[in-house]
Amino acid sequence: MKRKGIFILADGLGDRPIKELGGKTPLEYANTPNLDRLAKTGICGMQDPIFPGQPAGSDTAHLSILGYDPYKTYRGRGYYEALGAGIDVREDDIAFRVNFATYENGLIVDRRAGRIATEEAHELAKAIQEQVKLPVEFIFKGATSHRAVLVLRGLAKGYRVGENDPHEAGKPPHEFTYEDEESKRTAEILDEFVRKAHEVLEKHPINEKRRKEGKPVANYLLIRGAGTAPDIPKKFPEQWKVKAGAIVAVALVGGVLKAVGFELIPVNGITGEYDTNEITKAKAAVKALEEYDFVFVHFKPTDAAGHDGNAMKKVEMIEKLDRLVGYILDNVNLEKTVITLTGDHSTPCEVKNHSGDPVPLVIAGGGVRTDDVEAIGERQCAKGGLGRIRSKYIVPIMMDLMGRAEKYGA
Amino acid sequence: MKRKGIFILADGLGDRPIKELGGKTPLEYANTPNLDRLAKTGICGMQDPIFPGQPAGSDTAHLSILGYDPYKTYRGRGYYEALGAGIDVREDDIAFRVNFATYENGLIVDRRAGRIATEEAHELAKAIQEQVKLPVEFIFKGATSHRAVLVLRGLAKGYRVGENDPHEAGKPPHEFTYEDEESKRTAEILDEFVRKAHEVLEKHPINEKRRKEGKPVANYLLIRGAGTAPDIPKKFPEQWKVKAGAIVAVALVGGVLKAVGFELIPVNGITGEYDTNEITKAKAAVKALEEYDFVFVHFKPTDAAGHDGNAMKKVEMIEKLDRLVGYILDNVNLEKTVITLTGDHSTPCEVKNHSGDPVPLVIAGGGVRTDDVEAIGERQCAKGGLGRIRSKYIVPIMMDLMGRAEKYGA
Repeated sequence: MKRKGIFILADGLGDRPIKELGGKTPLEYANTPNLDRLAKTGICGMQDPIFPGQPAGSDTAHLSILGYDPYKTYRGRGYYEALGAGIDVREDDIAFRVNFATYENGLIVDRRAGRIATEEAHELAKAIQEQVKLPVEFIFKGATSHRAVLVLRGLAKGYRVGENDPHEAGKPPHEFTYEDEESKRTAEILDEFVRKAHEVLEKHPINEKRRKEGKPVANYLLIRGAGTAPDIPKKFPEQWKVKAGAIVAVALVGGVLKAVGFELIPVNGITGEYDTNEITKAKAAVKALEEYDFVFVHFKPTDAAGHDGNAMKKVEMIEKLDRLVGYILDNVNLEKTVITLTGDHSTPCEVKNHSGDPVPLVIAGGGVRTDDVEAIGERQCAKGGLGRIRSKYIVPIMMDLMGRAEKYGA
Repeated sequence: MKRKGIFILADGLGDRPIKELGGKTPLEYANTPNLDRLAKTGICGMQDPIFPGQPAGSDTAHLSILGYDPYKTYRGRGYYEALGAGIDVREDDIAFRVNFATYENGLIVDRRAGRIATEEAHELAKAIQEQVKLPVEFIFKGATSHRAVLVLRGLAKGYRVGENDPHEAGKPPHEFTYEDEESKRTAEILDEFVRKAHEVLEKHPINEKRRKEGKPVANYLLIRGAGTAPDIPKKFPEQWKVKAGAIVAVALVGGVLKAVGFELIPVNGITGEYDTNEITKAKAAVKALEEYDFVFVHFKPTDAAGHDGNAMKKVEMIEKLDRLVGYILDNVNLEKTVITLTGDHSTPCEVKNHSGDPVPLVIAGGGVRTDDVEAIGERQCAKGGLGRIRSKYIVPIMMDLMGRAEKYGA
């Protein structure tokens, strides 16, 4: 029987026991009738994004979860950021993640220029694109808030460059380092770009206005995360012979999905922030299932709460996720669908960053062997029938249940 | 302490929950006092034949279960079929699986020639061997029912050939495809063989008789599954320093066992079909344990029931298996023996083919750490003390318990 698949990924889902929550994790503590229903009807387990104990980035974790070895395919985050921002990045381009920042007397005083509004940042980016001239073609584009991406055409071979981001306010920007002759040229062009952009930004009307209003000016660019095209042996839709679509608000993750061959399904009202509309997202996922065989749904704010170290906010975001899952469970034919829920990695509130803890995993729907797990949670899932597996096997397991795996041998 | 080992492999054992069985799998549903006894006295777990989610063939699964990487060693099924049929296949031969089929007005109307009786097929095969002349030496031999094997001497390098089997009645036979010059020659010889065999079969008295009786004639050959010798680095008896014997009725599986160095122990009354005599097989296994250190017992009909999508038949076959295991448990010294029971893969009734679901595994006997599992079953074994392992580790675990593993390091 051929089935369809929904992969619900809650970013940074896993956590560690938190005193404030009576020693429970946010996932164990939250009120989650729908996630519990999923766990009860499905089979549970724990998955390691890369290998036990190894913290993964969102990009490397997604590569791995989609079945690609991150150590063989990953070439830096900038490429995915640029793809996710809608830039047509080419094989021989190099791409970077950029922050608008505030520069005063030789020091970076705010690494995010007061989290400048998206519209203002886009206006500034446009000015830079128009007024800066470089010896190579470039694309510079605002993303959300202080975030932007830079693509330098034809410099992929010079990818061994450092960054100018000091990663701390009150410090001067770093010099761009480089590891070989080709990367030296990239470093020089980055220098020139930062200098010329600074000139454009300093005198831009938006910054004059911000200065008058006492807001941090966006007069400097911090550049990091050099990335080139990953080495993807066979794209997802080709490998599995499925039409694959993704609903995702975050540029980095959207970029990874696009790089491995997913179509990005545009949905209004999803933000990747705490205020994202989970029911809009759930409806879009159910609708996408009509057209696509495999739908990937990315839910970001669980990760954001972990990075903020805010346990109660993470509980709140998990309850938002619970409503998303509830809508999907109520509106798909479970016998004809395989639903997976997991995270790309753990982002424990105590760490405020990604950790190497394994991540709870549930697979439910047609054909699934169940187990005794009755509720979602780190400790519950560790007792589940799937055992502890590597994230790279999740998609093969789903495709097998979906009747789309090919036998090896006779 | 040196112990002996019995490996009982129930083909296609694993399954998925089945409505007709109240949501249980056939293994969970069947009345299996002896398998439960085995699970209770032993240690349980789940094993993945290749990796989680990857459906395995019987040949690749057996290679893997015997400790050989199928991706490095496997070179197609035909070789094992031929070995299992008792042909002395050489390194530079190429072998094929063949069906006697019924051909009318350019179409294959029955891919199995009415499942022609073994004796008739053997007679027809003999006529082909005697009357067909080819530019290379060949061996053509009937197996069971409509099945036969073909070996072409010295053509191993031209192994990149397709098949002429349309895999569906009512279609014309395919042309043999090829991927390189050496394989082109193989394809041409196959063409010539099929044409000349057709002439011999058309006018053969057996077919004249079948025609008169209104039975489908066996007047055509469908050829598929090109295979050459696998690349076995070290044969099983050498690697483990054991005398290894196998009791198996199925040519394909017998071929794999022979290829890795097992002696095939001939036993009368075992058929590989639903009617196989399980007590005869069990007695032969117990007896073989006197002469051999490691005895592999293959039980086929569980797989056949899965392929037929017949849940109650699978239950019945598992109860047959239960009697086989009961006899063995009652007649070996458990302290001096290590008994393993598992499948080569799952063949769920809902899939009617091999799936990538993991397979229940029990290891019992001397030295084994037990666990809390009290009865056999997919869900029970998933809670067992062995956890979830790859099939390639089963033999090393057995050999370790058998006192035959070598320490690595000091």
